[in-house]
Amino acid sequence: MAPQRATLLQVAQRAGVSRSTASFVLTGRHLDMRISEDARQRVLRAAQELDYRPNLMARSLRTKVTKTVALVSDTLASDPYAGRAIHGSLAAAVAYGHLLFIGETEGDPVVEEKLIADFLDRQVDAFVYASMFTRYVRLPKQLKGRRVVLLNCLTRSARPIHHTIIPDELSAGRSAARTLLDAGHRAGIYLVGHVTQRVFACRERMAGIRDELGDAGTRLAGTIDCEWWPDSAYDAVSRALADGLVPKAFICLNDRIALGAYQALREAGRVIPDDVSVISFDDSEMAAWLRPQLTSISLPHYQLGWQAIERLLGVATEPQVHRLPMPVRVRESVAKPTPEL
Amino acid sequence: MAPQRATLLQVAQRAGVSRSTASFVLTGRHLDMRISEDARQRVLRAAQELDYRPNLMARSLRTKVTKTVALVSDTLASDPYAGRAIHGSLAAAVAYGHLLFIGETEGDPVVEEKLIADFLDRQVDAFVYASMFTRYVRLPKQLKGRRVVLLNCLTRSARPIHHTIIPDELSAGRSAARTLLDAGHRAGIYLVGHVTQRVFACRERMAGIRDELGDAGTRLAGTIDCEWWPDSAYDAVSRALADGLVPKAFICLNDRIALGAYQALREAGRVIPDDVSVISFDDSEMAAWLRPQLTSISLPHYQLGWQAIERLLGVATEPQVHRLPMPVRVRESVAKPTPEL
Repeated sequence: MAPQRATLLQVAQRAGVSRSTASFVLTGRHLDMRISEDARQRVLRAAQELDYRPNLMARSLRTKVTKTVALVSDTLASDPYAGRAIHGSLAAAVAYGHLLFIGETEGDPVVEEKLIADFLDRQVDAFVYASMFTRYVRLPKQLKGRRVVLLNCLTRSARPIHHTIIPDELSAGRSAARTLLDAGHRAGIYLVGHVTQRVFACRERMAGIRDELGDAGTRLAGTIDCEWWPDSAYDAVSRALADGLVPKAFICLNDRIALGAYQALREAGRVIPDDVSVISFDDSEMAAWLRPQLTSISLPHYQLGWQAIERLLGVATEPQVHRLPMPVRVRESVAKPTPEL
Repeated sequence: MAPQRATLLQVAQRAGVSRSTASFVLTGRHLDMRISEDARQRVLRAAQELDYRPNLMARSLRTKVTKTVALVSDTLASDPYAGRAIHGSLAAAVAYGHLLFIGETEGDPVVEEKLIADFLDRQVDAFVYASMFTRYVRLPKQLKGRRVVLLNCLTRSARPIHHTIIPDELSAGRSAARTLLDAGHRAGIYLVGHVTQRVFACRERMAGIRDELGDAGTRLAGTIDCEWWPDSAYDAVSRALADGLVPKAFICLNDRIALGAYQALREAGRVIPDDVSVISFDDSEMAAWLRPQLTSISLPHYQLGWQAIERLLGVATEPQVHRLPMPVRVRESVAKPTPEL
């Protein structure tokens, strides 16, 4: 059996005071209520001896604050890396003295409605509404007027109603191009990966790449189209090389593509970075394990999660969209282009 | 402002009944209390029209059931793969109509005590006590006598006091050896990775490997000692090959080691699986991306998480240690040994 919780009455009896007096002492109202210091000390000692814990649920019925936050996402916990946003949220929630509920909807609006209703039934104070992939969302009706921060997703409202935390993919695209430009690349820069305007990260990365190359008076030499997975990238890059392509640099739209590109380049006898420089996005765990180690633009999942909670529970400020920097993790896969013989 | 919650009194007034009558209807006690069907219908309609939601916290003060579970771990959410245990727990909690709190202690007993106290203050019904690495633990005092399941950790008590869910690492070791034996390997089988009795998974995997090889009348040809990381494995295997080692098969203690072994074998011109078969443990995402695809014994994180919640919230049974199977993911890295010329 679970240990019985000591009641307020037991504390009062042990201290030789009334239940109300014990309550006033333990809720810090002894000054208003003119309770003697002697009685106060007896109550505190009795509470300690009985290991009395105030019933936070009963108290929260009065104060309407439960010190709980719910993180509602589509499938954040299922992705190895997006899961780090949970880790960041968790750490920040602890720092702010809150506990964290998590719930996943798999993107199903019916599940979502039920889940949020369940959280509301438990009088959750505030919500983080999160998405695995950065995208536009419509905030569920039930969350209107509540304390909400958007994590890795944004609404189309002209003026943000809630703080919105997303990675700065536009600058990340510029950084990828800038890293190659700084190494001396101007020509033979190929994009690897399927380009679609429907994916937020892709759209922004592409805009950043084009802007940065354009500012330097150059442009992509072409695109090697493939799914964002190693095997598809391996096939597409292998084909392109077999067809006589002589690239100087690859910008891969994620690390998985970069892995496939590595495998194709190696089999074709092209050396990274001497023959071909490679840069990509995500900075997943694998990037540091490839040979040579892969230079990649980091997706700051942990910081995204932390910031969401901080904007939710920290000092209240005017809602805005916060674009978190995506730092370049410089490793060994980018070098200056070899001059043509 | 958050929308105001309709009160029970408002529902009662709209339905033209007393507050008690409305309460009896909405808590399913209308039969005991002989409330007319007409009154019952009016209350239900009013509740629907006002979008009345029973205050679950007030109710749980009476029933002492909050339908919440807390998952307390050292650092589960911080590891990309162990995080899948959270995903499994989450899915099972939903299936059982419960919500999931998560909390991390980073292995700090002071943080742990505070965290569990916070959960108890919120009258959490039950606990999953989890570890990132399989290991022996002492259950915190505060959880004694409560509903608890141990996830990926176990206590040293002679008879289990709580259901305990761990991966069957002993059988996994046997499976790794069996896979090589079935392919025809008897000699030149090397273990890759540092062997320590202090790590539960290592101890059990080793025992399984030795037992299975022993039953077939053979044994490991030797061990290539390295940290459980790609770069360390790459260095150690490269050195061994340079020193003239001619292995027929590698059992790598995890996929990260296997990645390093792949890189070393390739640079030394040894072909997987023709020259050397490779098998490892974990079945991380990467295993399917290597070329050739890596055969690996799967750590069933999701199932571990699911099972923990099922044992906690499902039909009560005698507590025991459940060792979940670790299936072999057969891919392309194991073949029959090439005969010596």
